[in-house]
Order: sequence, then C-alpha cells, then structure tokens
Amino acid sequence: MNTITLKSPFDMHIHFRDGDMMKVVAPLSSANFAGGIIMPNLVPPVDTKEAVIAYKSRVMDAIGDDDFIPFMTLFFKPYTKEFLSDVRDKISAVKLYPAGITTNSEGGVESIDTVALAPTLNAMSELNLPLCVHGETNGFVMDRESEFMSVYEELAIAFPKLTIIMEHITTKDAVNLVQQYDNLYATITLQHLLITLDDVAGGMLAPHLFCKPIAKRPEDREALVNIAVSGNEKIMFGSDSAPHPKHAKENCGCAAGVFTSPIALQALTQLFEANNSLDNLQKFISDNACKIYNMQPRSKNITLIKKDFKVPEYYEGFGEKIVPMYFGDTLSWSIKS
Amino acid sequence: MNTITLKSPFDMHIHFRDGDMMKVVAPLSSANFAGGIIMPNLVPPVDTKEAVIAYKSRVMDAIGDDDFIPFMTLFFKPYTKEFLSDVRDKISAVKLYPAGITTNSEGGVESIDTVALAPTLNAMSELNLPLCVHGETNGFVMDRESEFMSVYEELAIAFPKLTIIMEHITTKDAVNLVQQYDNLYATITLQHLLITLDDVAGGMLAPHLFCKPIAKRPEDREALVNIAVSGNEKIMFGSDSAPHPKHAKENCGCAAGVFTSPIALQALTQLFEANNSLDNLQKFISDNACKIYNMQPRSKNITLIKKDFKVPEYYEGFGEKIVPMYFGDTLSWSIKS
Repeated sequence: MNTITLKSPFDMHIHFRDGDMMKVVAPLSSANFAGGIIMPNLVPPVDTKEAVIAYKSRVMDAIGDDDFIPFMTLFFKPYTKEFLSDVRDKISAVKLYPAGITTNSEGGVESIDTVALAPTLNAMSELNLPLCVHGETNGFVMDRESEFMSVYEELAIAFPKLTIIMEHITTKDAVNLVQQYDNLYATITLQHLLITLDDVAGGMLAPHLFCKPIAKRPEDREALVNIAVSGNEKIMFGSDSAPHPKHAKENCGCAAGVFTSPIALQALTQLFEANNSLDNLQKFISDNACKIYNMQPRSKNITLIKKDFKVPEYYEGFGEKIVPMYFGDTLSWSIKS
Repeated sequence: MNTITLKSPFDMHIHFRDGDMMKVVAPLSSANFAGGIIMPNLVPPVDTKEAVIAYKSRVMDAIGDDDFIPFMTLFFKPYTKEFLSDVRDKISAVKLYPAGITTNSEGGVESIDTVALAPTLNAMSELNLPLCVHGETNGFVMDRESEFMSVYEELAIAFPKLTIIMEHITTKDAVNLVQQYDNLYATITLQHLLITLDDVAGGMLAPHLFCKPIAKRPEDREALVNIAVSGNEKIMFGSDSAPHPKHAKENCGCAAGVFTSPIALQALTQLFEANNSLDNLQKFISDNACKIYNMQPRSKNITLIKKDFKVPEYYEGFGEKIVPMYFGDTLSWSIKS
C-alpha cells in the first residue's frame, strides 16, 4: 500500500499551551487533524465557563482558517451540577490531575476520595460528561501508573455510568485493566508506542524523550502496541503532544513533555504498517474516539503517501525553537499536501 | 559526635580523565583522600606499560604536592603472563569493560567468555592482580546489572583465586551475590547510596545525577546502604567520580557520570551518621580496601567537623565549569582545614 486516507483523524489529548507558544503549535495540529481534546492545564487552570470560552476563542485565533474542532475541557475541581449543566455544551470532558503530578498540575486534587468527589462525578455521569484522568501516584517513577490502577478500579466501580478515560497509558497493567471494566477507556501517545526508558536514559540522556508518565519497560511497550494496532474499541490516539522551548528541555532540570503533533500521523502510519495493521489505524485515530465520546466524525480527510519525510530539527516562533520527536530523522510516510 | 577522623581514606574508583580536566579534578581528590584507583578508560585506553607510566606521571603532576597515591590500572585486554609480570609493580588492578557500555569503553571486550579470557585471568590470579569489572549487559537499562550476575558467578567459579571487584554496584541482586562467593568484592559510589531513578527522572530530568549504571529502585538503594553502613568487609567506597564539562551534561544528549570527589567524604559522613553507623565509616572508606587489595594504609588522616558545608555551584578551570553532585546544597559535615 502506498497511500492511506485517514478519515477525520482526532488527537484526543493535546497541550496547545497559550499565547506565543500556541500560535506556533496549534497550526501544526490543525493542519493534520480534524479536531482534538485541548487540555486545560494553563496557569491559572481553565476552571470557569468564561475561561473555557476565552481559551477556545484564543485557540480558534491560533488555528486560523484550518478546519479543526478544538474540544475544550475543564480542569477538574469539585463542581456543582448546576455549574456543569451550564457549561456542558462548551466542553467535551473534565480532566483530573493529582496535585503536582505533571506540568501545571499544582491545582489538582490532593487525594482521590470517591466519597468526596461523588457530587461532581455523579453530576458528570448524568450529563454524559467524560472524566479524563492523569493516572499517576507520587510513588517511585516506574511504579506510579501501576500504583494508580486501584484508583481507576475504585472510580470505575463507584461510578459505573461515568465514562473514564485513562490518559496516556504506559504499562501492561493499564492495558490489562482497561479491558476489565466497561466504563474504562484509554488514550495512548505516539512516544509510548515507540520508546522505552532505554531511549530516555539508556545511552545518553535524551531530554526530548522525557515525559510524564515516563516511558516504561519493553514488555509494557509491547502490550501498548498490541492493543493499539488491534483496533480495540476502548483505545484512542492521544498524542499528549507537549511543547516546551528548546532551552527548557536542554538544560539542567529538563521539563517533561514530548512534542509530536507534526509527526504523529506519519509515525503512526509507519508503526501500524510495520505491524501489518494499517487497516486498524482508522479505528485508533478516529472511529473509537467517536464512539467513546459520542461524536460525529468530521468530513476532513488526511492522506499519507509512502515517501520520505525528513523531520525538522525544530519548529520556530517568538524567538524560540521547539524540537519535535525524531528531529533530524527520516520517516517513511509523508502527509500528501 | 562533632568530629571524626578518617585514617587513610581511599577512593577505590576514580576517573581523573587527562589533560586540562585532570588538572582541575585530581587536586580535588588528592586534597581529601590518601589514594585511589585511577581508571584507565582514556582515549586511547591505558593498555601498555609505557602508557601506565606516562599516565601516572601526568597524574602526579596534576596532584602537585599533595600526599596522594594514584593506584594505576590497565584497561583489560587479552594480555600475556609475561606482559602482566613485567607491568605488575606499576599497577593495582586491571579494569574490564564490556565494549561500548559506558564513557570511553569502545575498546572493551565484546563477550565475556571464560575460556577465551582464561590465559589472562589465570595469569592475573597467579600475580595476585585484582580484576575490576564494569558489570552491565547491553539489555534494558534497569536490568543491565542484574543480567550481569550470571557472568560474575561464572567468573567467580572459574577463577577461584582471582580477586574480582564488582564495581559501582547498584542493585539488591549485586548486594546478595557479592556475599555468596569468597572471591567477589564490590565498590559502591556515593550517589547510589543516596539517589534512585526518581532523583534522575522522577521530577525534572536531572542530568548531573545521570550515570552508568543508572540509579535504580528504592529497595536497591536500601540494600546498598545497609551493606555499606554495616562495615561488611567485602565492600569499599569507590566514588566513580566522573567529571564532564557543564555543557556536556546540560545539553541534548547528556553524558553519563556524576562528579562527587570534592563532596564525597562530607556526604558519606552525613549518611553514616544518619544511619547511626559512624563507627563503620573507617571500614568502608579504607580498612576493607586495604584488606581486599592487600595494601598498607597511608599515614594521611582527614578530619571532618560537624559544620555546614555549602557545596559550590561548580568548580572551574580551562574555561569550563564542572558541576558537582549537590551543587548549591548544604551538607552538615565539613573537612577540617
């Protein structure tokens, strides 16, 4: 196969940031995708109706004329049903961060107490509003996600009608759990399908591959690839594309996040092809997300052709450079312009 | 206790490098230690008698007037007994690196075949010449040392009279193994007694704590601390202090190595005190090494006093900065000048 057309590709987990950075990165997503879930961890977090509307407006400005739907989200806090009802038609999900677990998550929840959170989560269930979760404890870095599995189970049992999205899963444990409860779903990033901790810290330290959750063991990656390429209907693509200026990545105390938006479709096509699963890419990149979020696909299609794509060393704007995953490398699929 | 005097402290694993770098770092070791094992992984490696003599001469120049004995080493290759006999009185050990496993190890052995290596290792046994080993496979970064345990066992069994030093051990597996064979011994670094992978990659990425072998899990560190502070006679301090210029640590593709020489005694004293084991520090820092290497202690003593020591942000020379572990932090013990 030398071309593949992806119908309505969605990126179900993106960090557009804000201001100057968003002006650089949002168009790199909107060029290649039909829409995406825009995460709310700004400073301050997006936690009011006004903030959602204002952020969406800035996102639309950054996108310009591209045909791209930003699915807005709220930063999880205890919200009333009244508030959530009022904001429901402006948002696609609410994103829960344990406090301090990743970039700009300081205002997240201190402990995940299903009793204390019940009013908010019951209201979300009734409003069919999905809960997206950054599922990590503050334990040892390689165990944080696995240690969080009991929290996911507790949430899944306590709120059986709530759609719970296990964001950016990285472990075999998460792959196993997502299949055990009807109301659990998951996104998987590009990098967690491609790298392990070896790529981050096995040779030289590789700041541009450092993210949270950190890439795990070979058997974890294998489990992620297997479920993604199978087309399993619980699994969606969410890049977690998370840009930082080059100097904030390549310094002492490198920030967490891998920037993948502009290379994601090309690299995913290469990966699915290598796994003889190109037929399932449509499910991973759009169909499953439409079912899980109860959305209609857009009419936008993206065609890829089997032709070398040299990944830029960096993207540029506002006097900063933003380095993508695979900078300087060559991928075997390109987006047809 | 407000002072402690360490008799003849030895650092049984140091990278002095060469040239300008050595002029900066060698005096920082020779000020605080009575001697140390100088590793031979220069470019090209130290693998001839002439190279040993010439390197030692450059080391002595760099040390200047300090009372410090550099114990020289050869880079392991297949050597004849004749050659080893001739060089025996110039060296204290031979250091074996698996090829490509760490900084400047490209010329190391491709596979550790006890039959192929027997002539060299038997000659070393007969000459009472210890074998120091960088014990890692080229497997997944968190498993490399544990996977090497079978190689250590094979060596220990095949060469029962050879003194085998498991260098810079980082795992519970290594702590267990070293106690199972009479001819196995081990060095432990400062950083592996103090940090885990969490400190390297759990928060921000910390290039100055990135080294090979990489810091492991909390239970591994616990096992290392327990055996070190117990004074176990098989265990010696070897800092593996490995300086790189600041820019080579804080960039994209950070070099492996933690620079600890100038802070090691202060931090070790603090650690042994915290574990109510100050009485055993003398064993870890000198007595055990003297027995294992069959050496006499030197008359040089170093006294530490309980007084804040502010670790410099960097040491400087030849237009470069070299950043030590704990830069900018305060330790509770100082070296009495």
